[in-house]
Amino acid sequence: MQVTTVTMDDVQYPYRLGTDCLDDIVTRLGELGASRYLVVSDPTVAELYGQRLCEELAALAGPAELITHPSGERNKGLPTLHDLAEEALRRGADRQSIVVALGGGVTGNIAGLLAALLFRGIRLVHVPTTVVAMLDSVLSLKQAVNAGVGKNLVGTFYQPVEVLADTAMLRTLPVREIRSGMCEVVKNSLAIRPSMIDQLSAGLRPDGRYPDDTMRWIIYESLAAKAQVTAYDKYERGEGLVLEYGHTVGHAVEHSSQGAVPHGAAVGLGMIAAARVSHRSGWASAELVELHRELVGKTGVALHIPSDVSLSAVRHRLAFDNKRGYLPVDAASYPMVLLESPGKVLRSEGTVLTAAPRDLVDSVVDELARAPRPGGRSADAAVLDGAR
Amino acid sequence: MQVTTVTMDDVQYPYRLGTDCLDDIVTRLGELGASRYLVVSDPTVAELYGQRLCEELAALAGPAELITHPSGERNKGLPTLHDLAEEALRRGADRQSIVVALGGGVTGNIAGLLAALLFRGIRLVHVPTTVVAMLDSVLSLKQAVNAGVGKNLVGTFYQPVEVLADTAMLRTLPVREIRSGMCEVVKNSLAIRPSMIDQLSAGLRPDGRYPDDTMRWIIYESLAAKAQVTAYDKYERGEGLVLEYGHTVGHAVEHSSQGAVPHGAAVGLGMIAAARVSHRSGWASAELVELHRELVGKTGVALHIPSDVSLSAVRHRLAFDNKRGYLPVDAASYPMVLLESPGKVLRSEGTVLTAAPRDLVDSVVDELARAPRPGGRSADAAVLDGAR
Repeated sequence: MQVTTVTMDDVQYPYRLGTDCLDDIVTRLGELGASRYLVVSDPTVAELYGQRLCEELAALAGPAELITHPSGERNKGLPTLHDLAEEALRRGADRQSIVVALGGGVTGNIAGLLAALLFRGIRLVHVPTTVVAMLDSVLSLKQAVNAGVGKNLVGTFYQPVEVLADTAMLRTLPVREIRSGMCEVVKNSLAIRPSMIDQLSAGLRPDGRYPDDTMRWIIYESLAAKAQVTAYDKYERGEGLVLEYGHTVGHAVEHSSQGAVPHGAAVGLGMIAAARVSHRSGWASAELVELHRELVGKTGVALHIPSDVSLSAVRHRLAFDNKRGYLPVDAASYPMVLLESPGKVLRSEGTVLTAAPRDLVDSVVDELARAPRPGGRSADAAVLDGAR
Repeated sequence: MQVTTVTMDDVQYPYRLGTDCLDDIVTRLGELGASRYLVVSDPTVAELYGQRLCEELAALAGPAELITHPSGERNKGLPTLHDLAEEALRRGADRQSIVVALGGGVTGNIAGLLAALLFRGIRLVHVPTTVVAMLDSVLSLKQAVNAGVGKNLVGTFYQPVEVLADTAMLRTLPVREIRSGMCEVVKNSLAIRPSMIDQLSAGLRPDGRYPDDTMRWIIYESLAAKAQVTAYDKYERGEGLVLEYGHTVGHAVEHSSQGAVPHGAAVGLGMIAAARVSHRSGWASAELVELHRELVGKTGVALHIPSDVSLSAVRHRLAFDNKRGYLPVDAASYPMVLLESPGKVLRSEGTVLTAAPRDLVDSVVDELARAPRPGGRSADAAVLDGAR
């Protein structure tokens, strides 16, 4: 496995990446040494990789317990955390145990918070099994769960001691998960690292089938993008907030769809919404909007909000967005990350946030809810033609 | 109000103490400035002080919400935290809100964890209303809740921005709470600050009625004792572990009694147990045991475990004590804080913990469960006579 060091302020941890390297993962976990390995995953991942990982850990490294939680964002809450904590303690967790978060973003978050809170903090190792987890979740110190009024409102900052990733695990992912994950890559390219746009655009595959070497390139580029903005901002409250690009509308859509629109796909929609808001406000060109549609489209995700998602629910969620408080805005605006051009973020009052008029955001959300006519041209393309 | 600065490593916060100073507390909270004050308390404290505090805050400082949680250690768990978080968010909590922990140790812990986790950390102000909270809980960064198998196993470290204490609030405390709190003072005197033993011994009142100036003296001495051991150990994992004196058996008794034995009273019993273990092992004199009985006895708490507490439950809890892991011990021992003499802690392997034989601890627990005959002599006094 190849090692990259993740650095955020005073926090550092190794990220080991390989392909077909489950044995190496087991060996490395054994080297870390634990009184007990608490392998946390959802039932699907438990069956695919969890049981084998635990068996190999038990044979090579020490007692290993497979602890499962129900799948999905709607189960990522304090009640699930409570069940996991009780189960881990019943199975003998102590201060020298290691929590192994084996899964996607939901598992990473909830197992991360579990590690942060058991005995006021025990070691955490991420073994991400999804694209989003490999290139986004495990590069954040945020460990949070959802509340009734919004996503990720309850949590803390906690660092893993290590990340161990095997791209072979991505082969069993449903294609919608791969497509969704690629939207986060598109986010990194548009908001932070425009140097990767051309190669990414050429490599994106709507069918979601990526060669291993492309996948590793994408992960390394994402590590570099993340490093650019969080190297001096481990709490993601300053420059790191740019990682929230597309997340204002994205979170609202994801949450309102009750999981029907996966995280990355929702962020893809959120980025298109952000680009439109920026363009309509006169801050960005129509080309920027079209570039968003092109890249997000090439990931293979849908370019509109499904018709069964309630738009009033989306608007309600927008009002509870967790960026409230970073930038004082009046009730007629939302604080959003907006771009002027690829890699160039609009700033106000020293932040990477801009007050976006609420009416404009709402109308852009309405547009995203209308499916484009098959074979028809997008409104943005028409605008683009007009601008030429 | 008089200000003392609490210092632990890089953490500092002011502790303001006075008598009949609720107005000053409101003024100070107003100076801190918050979008909303989330006053957390149990129903009893809410009625005694919470409603008035919220009314005065609303009049002087800004929106204030009174949020209550069910009383008692058995409700100090993640499910209660979940309810509080949902309620706080529904009432409009945001990043600029302040959590005001108004109450005793249970409220301080659960509101502390709430503040630590809402939006990954918002400001916390302690307004302690019990003796234990004023001189112990609010001087710790530990914010934790209980799990099924033991106390305080789930939590984090989080610092308040300020402590605001009014000894007048102690006047409404049930006498058993005062007596219980005084056991923590006895702990400080025996384990850390023997210089206060004589004055404390003269001032302790089994009836639990203390003049305000005595109460303030006790609090200042406790601040000084705590500072001695946590000034360079904010996580209480090194020298600070001495604060756990009496807590091994104490926690087990408290938890097994399901709240019938309050925290401090249980620690009182735990200290007597620890002194006996130390004496029987040849590490401390019989006089030390007698000094423990004398001081704990003068607080007015019972000197034995109530007959309806299951001793097998106590032994079971001992095996899950949260000091496991600080000192590697075999299954036949418990890691405990033990004294050689007042202020002099036994050490092993660079820690303030000692491996105490499990059989000995169990037999000492058994002894504590036998009520002394009325007017009879204690076993320790007999031993003491023999030693003279």
